[in-house]
Amino acid sequence: MTRTVIGVDLGGTNLRTALLAPEGEVLDRRKGATHVSDGWEKVVGRLIEEIGHQRANATRRGFAVAAVGVGAPGVIQGDRGIVVKSPNFPDWNNLPLKKLLEEALSLPVMIENDANAAALGEQWRGAGQNIKSMILLTLGTGVGGGIVLDSKIWHGADGMAGELGHMTIVPEGRLCSCGNVGCLEAYASARGIVQSYREALEPSVRRSSQGVGPITSEYVYEAARSGSEIALQVMRDMGRMLGIGIANLINIFNPERIVIGGGVKDAWPLFIESARQEIMRRAFEVPAKRTEIVPSLLGDDAGMVGAAAVAYQHLESGSRSGSSDA
Amino acid sequence: MTRTVIGVDLGGTNLRTALLAPEGEVLDRRKGATHVSDGWEKVVGRLIEEIGHQRANATRRGFAVAAVGVGAPGVIQGDRGIVVKSPNFPDWNNLPLKKLLEEALSLPVMIENDANAAALGEQWRGAGQNIKSMILLTLGTGVGGGIVLDSKIWHGADGMAGELGHMTIVPEGRLCSCGNVGCLEAYASARGIVQSYREALEPSVRRSSQGVGPITSEYVYEAARSGSEIALQVMRDMGRMLGIGIANLINIFNPERIVIGGGVKDAWPLFIESARQEIMRRAFEVPAKRTEIVPSLLGDDAGMVGAAAVAYQHLESGSRSGSSDA
Repeated sequence: MTRTVIGVDLGGTNLRTALLAPEGEVLDRRKGATHVSDGWEKVVGRLIEEIGHQRANATRRGFAVAAVGVGAPGVIQGDRGIVVKSPNFPDWNNLPLKKLLEEALSLPVMIENDANAAALGEQWRGAGQNIKSMILLTLGTGVGGGIVLDSKIWHGADGMAGELGHMTIVPEGRLCSCGNVGCLEAYASARGIVQSYREALEPSVRRSSQGVGPITSEYVYEAARSGSEIALQVMRDMGRMLGIGIANLINIFNPERIVIGGGVKDAWPLFIESARQEIMRRAFEVPAKRTEIVPSLLGDDAGMVGAAAVAYQHLESGSRSGSSDA
Repeated sequence: MTRTVIGVDLGGTNLRTALLAPEGEVLDRRKGATHVSDGWEKVVGRLIEEIGHQRANATRRGFAVAAVGVGAPGVIQGDRGIVVKSPNFPDWNNLPLKKLLEEALSLPVMIENDANAAALGEQWRGAGQNIKSMILLTLGTGVGGGIVLDSKIWHGADGMAGELGHMTIVPEGRLCSCGNVGCLEAYASARGIVQSYREALEPSVRRSSQGVGPITSEYVYEAARSGSEIALQVMRDMGRMLGIGIANLINIFNPERIVIGGGVKDAWPLFIESARQEIMRRAFEVPAKRTEIVPSLLGDDAGMVGAAAVAYQHLESGSRSGSSDA
């Protein structure tokens, strides 16, 4: 019987589950609402229910489920399976999610930070296939990151490594959502792009204060695609800032690949050229030429696929250490 | 018979060798001149001669030499034992140093980049003992770095990881020796400190153009220690720039410790407070509090000790894979 695992992407809005084959193929996916405001007990209950549906689904199709991997936002202590804290789940404080799920499911459960899971997902089945060192930059509302070295997530001493969006790139720059100033996130996120566009537009906004509706990042991309020089310049500037951050990562890690994910990725042609120029200007030549900068491939699946990868890695390390003990 | 190794620090000026016990104790050390201008063949010959002296020394004392580790400046392909290129040795292009030394010595030889070797040396026997993740920043004429993760050097895809001095921290800042602008090195190196002092002094230099001799970084530290407000401010500003760089490393790696080495370390009390303030301002609280910032402990020994560590790691991995093959 094929040994499958269930990958879970627990987001602030959606709760996604997938059934995955050992080579990473998604056999089935489900999506439900998380309803964070119901409180942690109900959310965990819903999680158990969704995993149960996916398990029944597996049985129906003739598959055994060997483990569950969960990607969750926030600070995760993976080895103990605890969600230390999570900005999206205000009432989750040191929640022993692994223990709660394992007791309910009688299956091994692994917990991983969602950005790390997405990075591992891309490395396993997406834009990072066939390489061992890869950095994922997720350009969404904010900027997240995941570092894969020798095919494993680098977690850091407190499980808090990979806060790539909070690299300072302008010493006394823009205020960032983290409270610091001049972070990469303040320039290269959807929020940063909107702010840059507003700032660039300000004189004309003043002239016709009714003229501009609520500006979104998609609005800015659309304006740029329609030839607005202001919007085009905003996206080039964003690319330049992203390029500084990527050049730093190249000089630090000398990685094989850097993968760009998140909603901002959809505006790829509007920022990638100025990003590449900045990278070639700032990173050492050999690693700059070596590092491929590519868009992510898995989209919304990345977190689930990566969570499943964590579960498979756990199963493999268990069988490996089991055989060497013997 | 105690199985020792010889650690070599091949610098542009000095060629240092040491005999080390398995637990890292330096049993003996020698120092000679490198004479780079004599060309690679003579330098390699001198290297073989110095290692030979150290080996005879070991025999005299009743020790066996099991391997040699060499730390060399520049781009090193450690697995193949090749010095790809080295700014300090202009005529070393793809030099197969490992092969040359192994043929002459009939001993296993490991080659490592010198900054990486120093980092591993500090982690093994110096300021990074008893921890597994550590970043070394060497503040000398330039700024070098070495990244130790899970007790191993992170080399990157081309052996060029750890160029921490060339992280951009001021987008359109000072010209750096690497040709880029705004690198950490341009502010936090001895050269950067001298430049900052010159810039701060410029009006008074103009007033009495004969008054100031050749300014060195030591001169600036001395002026600061004597209460010069200009020099004190230069050192605080340097600490602030260093703090930005360290905060970035903390947000990226969440390491256990950051070790500061190099000549500038001697001015520790003049920059560390402003560096710490900047770190607390910019890095996430949990990792910022966790990361100890400490001075290096091994001084000139670091490179030799680390090169020996590489040799011991090689011997151990050989005996491990040997035993599992059996």
